[in-house]
Amino acid sequence: MSDMNKILECVPNFSEGRDLDKIDKIVNPFRGKRDVKLLDFQRDEDHNRLVVTAIGGPVALKQSVMEAMGVAIDLIDMRKHKGQHPRMGAIDVVPFIPVRNISMTEAIDFSKDVAKEVAEKYALPVYLYEESAMVPERQNLAVVRKGEFEKMAEKMKTPEWKPDFGPGEIHPSAGVTAIGARMPLVAFNVNLGTDDIKIAHAIAKNVRHISGGLRYCKAIGIALKEKGIVQVSMNMTDYTKTSLYRSFELVKAEAKRYGVNVIGSEIVGLVPMEALIDTAVYYMGIENFTTEQVLEVRIWE
Amino acid sequence: MSDMNKILECVPNFSEGRDLDKIDKIVNPFRGKRDVKLLDFQRDEDHNRLVVTAIGGPVALKQSVMEAMGVAIDLIDMRKHKGQHPRMGAIDVVPFIPVRNISMTEAIDFSKDVAKEVAEKYALPVYLYEESAMVPERQNLAVVRKGEFEKMAEKMKTPEWKPDFGPGEIHPSAGVTAIGARMPLVAFNVNLGTDDIKIAHAIAKNVRHISGGLRYCKAIGIALKEKGIVQVSMNMTDYTKTSLYRSFELVKAEAKRYGVNVIGSEIVGLVPMEALIDTAVYYMGIENFTTEQVLEVRIWE
Repeated sequence: MSDMNKILECVPNFSEGRDLDKIDKIVNPFRGKRDVKLLDFQRDEDHNRLVVTAIGGPVALKQSVMEAMGVAIDLIDMRKHKGQHPRMGAIDVVPFIPVRNISMTEAIDFSKDVAKEVAEKYALPVYLYEESAMVPERQNLAVVRKGEFEKMAEKMKTPEWKPDFGPGEIHPSAGVTAIGARMPLVAFNVNLGTDDIKIAHAIAKNVRHISGGLRYCKAIGIALKEKGIVQVSMNMTDYTKTSLYRSFELVKAEAKRYGVNVIGSEIVGLVPMEALIDTAVYYMGIENFTTEQVLEVRIWE
Repeated sequence: MSDMNKILECVPNFSEGRDLDKIDKIVNPFRGKRDVKLLDFQRDEDHNRLVVTAIGGPVALKQSVMEAMGVAIDLIDMRKHKGQHPRMGAIDVVPFIPVRNISMTEAIDFSKDVAKEVAEKYALPVYLYEESAMVPERQNLAVVRKGEFEKMAEKMKTPEWKPDFGPGEIHPSAGVTAIGARMPLVAFNVNLGTDDIKIAHAIAKNVRHISGGLRYCKAIGIALKEKGIVQVSMNMTDYTKTSLYRSFELVKAEAKRYGVNVIGSEIVGLVPMEALIDTAVYYMGIENFTTEQVLEVRIWE
């Protein structure tokens, strides 16, 4: 894969987490393709859901995604689907994330292209969500998906929930799909030296955007039973604007009022290099540092 | 350049910093080659010296280096060379640095291959230095180079300074070359909130290896006249063993006794990604982090 080219990440969520044969068939279009790389796929039996992570150039990635969506529509019948995770379609949601040499504007345009094409090809209603949303009400996936598959047919009859692309009614077996562009999420958790879940909840409330905290931070308090500690579990929704170190330092400051120490942190899954460099630059006050100074960047560019 | 392949960095130093035509001819073998990439070249008129930075696969890089050395031998006459920087040959020193998918042991073997071939091809005496040195006395380039070009003929007559490869006497116009493998150097400077050079000297003395400090740290105090401050200027000779953050924290701790604050830092030139990740991991106490979690690493691998 040439780094001179544009690279997008795609993390489609499919409503099948149990049948290994079907899962294999859905994942397969991401394998062995020129200019597409399957990074990961994880299925969850309780959620009855499959999350695929792939990267690639726009042209090739679109082909793989569309092919996988076709397979999922053939194999998944939402009328028989049960699972703990909220869902509204066989392909529940398809986020595209700009990774390299591609702007958010381009990623949005790309997501709309894909949405239009799959809607036509598969007679599938599609909502544009996140950065691609045409109206503010559709930015938040939870709002779009509210009612889930079972109530979508009815919801779609109201004018404000007419799909952005495709037919004005649900696909009988595959339901509805949300497609959109978003920034990479960083799953960043900070561990506290206490087993008091109330403290984790209180700190989460203070650092997260919705209740007055950092603009690009979602947070909840959770208990790590085996470790006997609690954790502020965060989703950093735009690390370029709300840095990891800023949420870390804020959790530390909030913990102080309870006499509690921050005892560590963890990053779950992938993190863009820039988010870590930003952290190093902050803590050592490195002046005028540019990513071009990273040896690997010079090698790979 | 495929990342599945081994990548070495090479930073040859040539004794020509003034004649732009000659410099161009010496640099040229690193241009337009498959599997070799010229990252940088800097010439200094006072030093009368050229430093080239290139990366590539072993086979291709060896070809480029040998070609450039041949050109330098043709164009540079050390009998006429004047410059402030110590030097003993037309190609003064050729360090090889393992960058990717290549161990230090392999880099050492590679440097010996190159040394043997250039010695034979150009009738050039070569000392193996740094990690490639066959005897401890030859590890330190300053010791090898002592006496410089002008006294090398005499020095070489003593049994302990018989070259590792090539003839037992200097090349009449090109002198002697040191070749070896070494870890990447990181030039890391920490700025102090004072203009008192004695404080910078004292801190440098305490943090550097030679006078009792950190194993892989060289340090001097220098004055930044325009900024009106002083700086502890460090060469981190193995960032995998002496981390950047450790030297930073140690400078901070030493500065404290003088009531002086660390007011920033800088990284000059290139730095391996791992050195910065290591720093982020330290300051936020990120548990169980692996380089595989860096998105770009997954893309580029």
